[in-house]
Amino acid sequence: MSFTQHLVQKYQHEWRQTQQHPFVQELGRGTLDRNKFRFYLIQDYLYLIDYAKLFALGAIKAPDLTTMSEFSASLSNILHEEMGIHRSYAARFGITKEELEQAEPSPITLAYSHYMLHVAQNGGLAELTAALLPCMWSYWEIGRMLKEFPGAVDHPDYGEWVRGYSSEEFGKHAQWCINLMDRLALGKSESELARLETIFLNTTRYETLFWEMSYQQQMWL
Amino acid sequence: MSFTQHLVQKYQHEWRQTQQHPFVQELGRGTLDRNKFRFYLIQDYLYLIDYAKLFALGAIKAPDLTTMSEFSASLSNILHEEMGIHRSYAARFGITKEELEQAEPSPITLAYSHYMLHVAQNGGLAELTAALLPCMWSYWEIGRMLKEFPGAVDHPDYGEWVRGYSSEEFGKHAQWCINLMDRLALGKSESELARLETIFLNTTRYETLFWEMSYQQQMWL
Amino acid sequence: MSFTQHLVQKYQHEWRQTQQHPFVQELGRGTLDRNKFRFYLIQDYLYLIDYAKLFALGAIKAPDLTTMSEFSASLSNILHEEMGIHRSYAARFGITKEELEQAEPSPITLAYSHYMLHVAQNGGLAELTAALLPCMWSYWEIGRMLKEFPGAVDHPDYGEWVRGYSSEEFGKHAQWCINLMDRLALGKSESELARLETIFLNTTRYETLFWEMSYQQQMWL
Amino acid sequence: MSFTQHLVQKYQHEWRQTQQHPFVQELGRGTLDRNKFRFYLIQDYLYLIDYAKLFALGAIKAPDLTTMSEFSASLSNILHEEMGIHRSYAARFGITKEELEQAEPSPITLAYSHYMLHVAQNGGLAELTAALLPCMWSYWEIGRMLKEFPGAVDHPDYGEWVRGYSSEEFGKHAQWCINLMDRLALGKSESELARLETIFLNTTRYETLFWEMSYQQQMWL
Repeated sequence: MSFTQHLVQKYQHEWRQTQQHPFVQELGRGTLDRNKFRFYLIQDYLYLIDYAKLFALGAIKAPDLTTMSEFSASLSNILHEEMGIHRSYAARFGITKEELEQAEPSPITLAYSHYMLHVAQNGGLAELTAALLPCMWSYWEIGRMLKEFPGAVDHPDYGEWVRGYSSEEFGKHAQWCINLMDRLALGKSESELARLETIFLNTTRYETLFWEMSYQQQMWL
Repeated sequence: MSFTQHLVQKYQHEWRQTQQHPFVQELGRGTLDRNKFRFYLIQDYLYLIDYAKLFALGAIKAPDLTTMSEFSASLSNILHEEMGIHRSYAARFGITKEELEQAEPSPITLAYSHYMLHVAQNGGLAELTAALLPCMWSYWEIGRMLKEFPGAVDHPDYGEWVRGYSSEEFGKHAQWCINLMDRLALGKSESELARLETIFLNTTRYETLFWEMSYQQQMWL
Repeated sequence: MSFTQHLVQKYQHEWRQTQQHPFVQELGRGTLDRNKFRFYLIQDYLYLIDYAKLFALGAIKAPDLTTMSEFSASLSNILHEEMGIHRSYAARFGITKEELEQAEPSPITLAYSHYMLHVAQNGGLAELTAALLPCMWSYWEIGRMLKEFPGAVDHPDYGEWVRGYSSEEFGKHAQWCINLMDRLALGKSESELARLETIFLNTTRYETLFWEMSYQQQMWL
Repeated sequence: MSFTQHLVQKYQHEWRQTQQHPFVQELGRGTLDRNKFRFYLIQDYLYLIDYAKLFALGAIKAPDLTTMSEFSASLSNILHEEMGIHRSYAARFGITKEELEQAEPSPITLAYSHYMLHVAQNGGLAELTAALLPCMWSYWEIGRMLKEFPGAVDHPDYGEWVRGYSSEEFGKHAQWCINLMDRLALGKSESELARLETIFLNTTRYETLFWEMSYQQQMWL
């Protein structure tokens, strides 16, 4: 069994939580409150900025030029493609560029991004990849799951989201991350693998908390 | 007005929240549920380990040998004194060394510590100090406030906590941090000061969320 | 006077040394020993890999999305353009891809790149930019100076090098770095500016040592 | 064979160079030019400040509290003991505190310290320890070797240096580092061990270059 298969089996409870959260289910059924999705879009935009920095860190930690180039290409892609899509999506929900830029991160947005950033900065490429993996992989899983929901891909509000994260292109990106994790786990000692498991577990849990935060529109106390 | 006075005035709402939280008030009145305090002790122990790392980072970022030595002395003090007190306190609440070492951090414990660690690693000494300040300073404020609560310093469970954080020694430590922040803020540009304000605001808010997490004994979803 | 003008005036001796080094002068006159240039090409290839990482760090330290995108674009450009040019140039000098990949960095190559990397990691964007500036700026100065040497741009071995670093495109890149440094220096305190000066001075000196190392083909003792 | 034994066997040429350098040999015979030693003392003082930061980084990278405390204790020891000895030694050579504080690092001092700092910051505790090891271990080897030179331990100028680095206390410190390296190397993959070897090799070579720099009193070109 590959390391990534082991991860989702060992933490299947937490892994399924990301897919079964009411935010995700209602998004697929098209019944999600638009205000909740609006809240999510803004927080996800802020999250993406720090998420992009993880790929910059990946380029620094990479042991060879090929891996370095892959991280660099992902960084470009997030900054020039994915954030553009977010901005146009946001515009459709009446969120201006100014609102996006002045928005304040919620406690969970800050928590998730800074957990990843510190883990990546303080560790090696394996730790960084374990931190990245749940976001990419669970979005792909969710995209493919929701694609099968009746009408989900054509929904006027949420269809683009479902199409994006179930697309072949996004799938390639997720698969790249899965393969990288498996490659980096080879030959690691047990204590090193245990550390990677903990990181994967924590960012998986933060994925669920991110859905919950969006569903509850949670800001600071 | 000094920069630190400006901070607590600008964010007086958030600053007062740390002191008025039910956890803190009930601790002072001696009515706090022992299980809530027990939960707090364990999470605070985990928090302290990462908090200590901030002082190690301070020694790396320090611009001169005197500041470097001050951070190094604080690091030693946390590792050799403060954590020892925590362990003996924990023992009184029936928490074994093993329980402490195997305990898992809550989402807010991870969030708070990793926010500080990344901010400190990515910024300079001023950013690091702005991240540190609310913890030290609000504990000193709380210690001195609770000391005036009838019977608080002699309470069999919580008296030691109140005496510790209202002590002259702890006050010196907090005052050192306040003075350092004021010194580092001198001559900073407006955009740099705005960045320091945001960091202070966020760690102040995480202080309140730490009390709330302990009061609600919140772990992962 | 802008900060960058102040820098080259204050350190004019060290600044001129980079341009007047025999390696540079003989390159322009076309008399440079091909073995010395060959040595330089290999070490510069190794240097470029770490130099690219500085732009990844810039994307992490950038205070806004525009600056973040500029650093990300430079990172891509170095990895996908500049290193390709190096590889094709190297091929012309009979250096294989394998030789490039197995080459060992000289003490000065390691010194220069790791000085920049640590300064950038430990400081803010201003420190990072001060570390980057001498490389980009002095190459542009040298390119424009050598362009006026009779026959330099058409030299069969060295003409491409001279054309590249005197090109408008490279000039835009250098000018971007100069402007960024001036913008970041605004509103900095005297002690912060002094720190930036020291960094600029040290990487300017390492530029000269890099020419010297190539001229002497210096490896380890 | 332990990993550290493997290291000194594989790189025995470079390892012996550190011990056989004229600076070291003349120090043991008591014939070393006092100006060369004076130059060394100043550069070593500057080196020590950055070297101390490696121990602070060790406290951050440490996987458990015991290791964290050991690095913290070493940091304190360098700042409060070793640097004090350097200052008193320097005073005997007519170097004032001001001269020490205003001294400028040489290219090799900067190179060596920044190579270690970046390697440690970017890697894990194993990389950090591989960077640290040659300094501590080669000094201990040199101390014990010179102790056997007739009159070396009683030499009015250099005896204290020889006694210090051949002392049991220093030996314990070096042995701690050797044991830590062996422990951290257990269970590492071949590519990870190869990376540790390269780091050990490079800092061993920088040790020799540090002696050479002192012997030649090399500053910038």
